[in-house]
Amino acid sequence: MKKTRESEGRFLIEGWHLLEEALKSGRRLHALIFDEAARREPEEGKLLARCVSVAGESFSGTSTQLGQLSDTKSSQGVVALIDHVGVDAESLLPVWRRKETLRLLALDAVADPGNCGAIIRTCDWFGFDGVLLGTGCAELENGKTARATMGGLFHLPVATRVDLPLALGSLREDGVSILSTELEGAESLAGLVFPERCALVIGNEARGVSSEVSALASARLFVPCFGGGESLNAATAAAVFMARWRL
Amino acid sequence: MKKTRESEGRFLIEGWHLLEEALKSGRRLHALIFDEAARREPEEGKLLARCVSVAGESFSGTSTQLGQLSDTKSSQGVVALIDHVGVDAESLLPVWRRKETLRLLALDAVADPGNCGAIIRTCDWFGFDGVLLGTGCAELENGKTARATMGGLFHLPVATRVDLPLALGSLREDGVSILSTELEGAESLAGLVFPERCALVIGNEARGVSSEVSALASARLFVPCFGGGESLNAATAAAVFMARWRL
Repeated sequence: MKKTRESEGRFLIEGWHLLEEALKSGRRLHALIFDEAARREPEEGKLLARCVSVAGESFSGTSTQLGQLSDTKSSQGVVALIDHVGVDAESLLPVWRRKETLRLLALDAVADPGNCGAIIRTCDWFGFDGVLLGTGCAELENGKTARATMGGLFHLPVATRVDLPLALGSLREDGVSILSTELEGAESLAGLVFPERCALVIGNEARGVSSEVSALASARLFVPCFGGGESLNAATAAAVFMARWRL
Repeated sequence: MKKTRESEGRFLIEGWHLLEEALKSGRRLHALIFDEAARREPEEGKLLARCVSVAGESFSGTSTQLGQLSDTKSSQGVVALIDHVGVDAESLLPVWRRKETLRLLALDAVADPGNCGAIIRTCDWFGFDGVLLGTGCAELENGKTARATMGGLFHLPVATRVDLPLALGSLREDGVSILSTELEGAESLAGLVFPERCALVIGNEARGVSSEVSALASARLFVPCFGGGESLNAATAAAVFMARWRL
């Protein structure tokens, strides 16, 4: 039951890749459920044996039962129960404050789980110090979000259900520059020199960054358009900003 | 019937946004099917009236019938039958050959419709001259691909079912540089100066660019990693390359 899992601060991860990433990052598998009859590659068989040996409890289930626990069309026949990976912003802010260079990404009501996950994956690739998922974002522990991170959710700290005006306001007081990404009345990314300590804000897919958060920004930026289209996808825009920052 | 539509070179587009983009770009609506009882915003009502006035035939259907024609979870209650937008590479190559600056993106078996569509959307934004969808790519006229382009499929020429070794080989003979994006044995994007006439190749989500296509490239490039993760998402990587090219 999802409700029980949530009240216990746990969630289900699904599929061999996430399971491997969870083990690599030292997460505890409270329970493992797998379809004994499922066809598996030799590598997956080895991974399963490792999982069984470290899991708190292991259960074998039928493909129907695994299908019920899965939120993908074709279940890989394995799920595991692990602790939530998202943390409170309060526990991360003091760590971030002390850093001389700081690269943060804040998501302001980015609602699509695929976008949230893809952005965390890109933050991981570009070595960001952390992600703030504001209220209204897709849940980090949603299956689609978790899978789209491709393991990134285990690699870098992610604060969840963050009150962004509060958290970003507090970072700003400590000298962190807030950069908001916008479509209108903004300056081109092309001319920007990124400050040493920054938090870049990506907004909701339809409404963009909220006015409350935008008001905290020292710069409001956009990706210049050379062709057509009304906007870039949120995860695409985030990647363009992050790459510009690092390359 | 999908088969009949395909044999007639037509496909269904779904939802208000794509319909508006189709009209804007002067596409002919052979048939329009809409749910008369569906709740609509005033803007959507106006658009519907315009569509009815220009469509070859108009039919009203029940929400169940519209649901059967839809491949989304929640149909917007409107679909239209239009001509295929993808063309043969042969008709585009002579045009591209004559251009003094040329920005092309070639997709080598990018299988996910969401990725293919997102990449076309980004090509549109950055003003690319065209896209080549190689064999093994998601179909351009697949509903998911078309929606993910956000109208981009109407804005820039897209060649479909392209024999990439043939087409890219022919472009190379005309002095167009082929740039392949790869993970291993490649040079960093950071050091690259883009030639005036280029075709950038993005590879399959799991296997990357095929060796046959990679052999045609004058440069094999990667996006440097500063953190963790095994790879970037194909659409993300494409966006990073395209932004680097333009900004």
